[in-house]
Amino acid sequence: MPVGTQGTIKGQLPDSIAATGSQCILANTYHLMLRPGEETVSQLGELHRFMGWRGPILTDSGGFQVFSLSDINKIDDEGVTFKSQIDGSIIHLTPARSIAVQNKLGADIIMCFDECPESTAPRDVQERAVERTIRWAKICREAHSRPDAQSLFGIVQGGLHVDLRLACAEKLIGLDFPGYAVGGLAVGEGFDNMLKVLDGVVGALPADKPRYLMGVGYPRDLVEAVARGIDMFDCTLPTRNGRNANAWTPGGQIRLKNAKFARDDRPVEEGCDCVCCRQFTRGAIRHFFMADEMLGPILLSLHNVRFYQRLMSDVRASIEAGRFEAFRTTDPRAVLGAGIRQAD
Amino acid sequence: MPVGTQGTIKGQLPDSIAATGSQCILANTYHLMLRPGEETVSQLGELHRFMGWRGPILTDSGGFQVFSLSDINKIDDEGVTFKSQIDGSIIHLTPARSIAVQNKLGADIIMCFDECPESTAPRDVQERAVERTIRWAKICREAHSRPDAQSLFGIVQGGLHVDLRLACAEKLIGLDFPGYAVGGLAVGEGFDNMLKVLDGVVGALPADKPRYLMGVGYPRDLVEAVARGIDMFDCTLPTRNGRNANAWTPGGQIRLKNAKFARDDRPVEEGCDCVCCRQFTRGAIRHFFMADEMLGPILLSLHNVRFYQRLMSDVRASIEAGRFEAFRTTDPRAVLGAGIRQAD
Repeated sequence: MPVGTQGTIKGQLPDSIAATGSQCILANTYHLMLRPGEETVSQLGELHRFMGWRGPILTDSGGFQVFSLSDINKIDDEGVTFKSQIDGSIIHLTPARSIAVQNKLGADIIMCFDECPESTAPRDVQERAVERTIRWAKICREAHSRPDAQSLFGIVQGGLHVDLRLACAEKLIGLDFPGYAVGGLAVGEGFDNMLKVLDGVVGALPADKPRYLMGVGYPRDLVEAVARGIDMFDCTLPTRNGRNANAWTPGGQIRLKNAKFARDDRPVEEGCDCVCCRQFTRGAIRHFFMADEMLGPILLSLHNVRFYQRLMSDVRASIEAGRFEAFRTTDPRAVLGAGIRQAD
Repeated sequence: MPVGTQGTIKGQLPDSIAATGSQCILANTYHLMLRPGEETVSQLGELHRFMGWRGPILTDSGGFQVFSLSDINKIDDEGVTFKSQIDGSIIHLTPARSIAVQNKLGADIIMCFDECPESTAPRDVQERAVERTIRWAKICREAHSRPDAQSLFGIVQGGLHVDLRLACAEKLIGLDFPGYAVGGLAVGEGFDNMLKVLDGVVGALPADKPRYLMGVGYPRDLVEAVARGIDMFDCTLPTRNGRNANAWTPGGQIRLKNAKFARDDRPVEEGCDCVCCRQFTRGAIRHFFMADEMLGPILLSLHNVRFYQRLMSDVRASIEAGRFEAFRTTDPRAVLGAGIRQAD
């Protein structure tokens, strides 16, 4: 799922995103709650009309942003008090309030409000976070006023402790959510630690319901998480990389501001069917970045989203054809991780 | 013609611009010569490939920008010496050099290098400018190395002096260009003065060749110039207005940053078929501007270009139907001028 934090995937018309093969997109409750506010979004026809997007939309709970972005004043069993990054006002976010906001925003999939400590935080911190996450999940379930229109997913926390993760999953499964997410990963614990958690936890989540790994990740992360049973991902990487002039190719990322591309008349990725690769040369895209033209970020974001969607489409096709193991071990994209390799 | 100064209509994919009904687009020789340089554009497949645009492209000569934007060191009969706004280097632009650059850029229509004084400059300044413009037009015509691929238009100068304009036009017509432009207007002389010049000059330009009024303008300007025989226009107004949150409607411009639009669930212009009006509410667009999202400028630029293209399409239809005079005197858009009227 490409990420449209403030109700827009930065610089993109909805038709351009649809043309990449994207089906579901994400918007952030935290940002939209602060600006323009959920009442405004509701009055303007809810998120589908607001974003001009006909396909499915998912909103997160605001929990991750509150813990990672904001100036937190207080966390207790009731919720979190923090200072708005827009106008400095003091805001109290509780599980019930997060759900009320998400009910107003009107996405198709909404998320429970969870406590997200650092994945490497000590065990006692993780234990308390799991306890709160479970207590809050119950409150969210009860507060949810539109269960027929919006699917509320539970979020498994527990840091790097598989036993805590499994205990959290068991309690959430007891609440019978229509989908389950693994949260609190890809926040600095490293690739191997993330895989260890997935190895231990994903199998415990119902196979007949969507399993969603939040905020992940690099192509390698996606392929290896799929191998462990994950169905859904969201990440800002393709669009953020694109805005920063980095384009994904099967051989690694290339940095379009690099002078060597100034007169390169090839597309970003040979054979790619995206509008960027069909219509523009590397040299022209480099010029747009050097001249501070919006078209540079727009084109590379689109290419990167298409790169990711083609990767996932190829992953699905390989599963259906019974050759995912071969794909995982031989496709050049399956090794593209945090250590960015420059192609060419 | 929408304007793509640096090789891109700011924030727009080519398909989005094509969907507004735009056929010919403009790029600026001055900017592209300085960055990325005409050799680079040439090597990247010339402007059509560089901009991803299959329709016609027009480049100006660089003259207007040299006179209006740059730090001029010297003007003489040979050309202009100025300091690059990109890197401060000293650049000498002559008629022959302008044409050589435009031959490299590869647009379908290219323009003679002219001297553009202020329209209100004294008569002796205008006389000298006309002399140089004519001398330079001859040089341009001889320097033009791709007459079969690129149509070179002459530019009529002469400020507000109709006799100078007519003398200039006569000399240029003697050089037999495939099209003629009226330059040096819409630069502060006022609506009535502009019309006086057009009244006196346009009829002297061949009716069987395109007559192009450069850098104009407001809807009213376009309609009144058409009434006087003008066929072609370019202007940055639709896109610049859009980037500044101002949207054209038949009742005047509306400023989308205005708080009154925060929960306005109507489209920018009722009944408009552009992507902005079909898919987004005024309230959502206001939010994109308040949140510094690129989508705000992108959507309003598209709407404004579509507004202008629909205006011109309606003008053409009214001419073909023999009812242009009624259109000109009764259509609400025909009075929209520099005094911006807020609709609603």
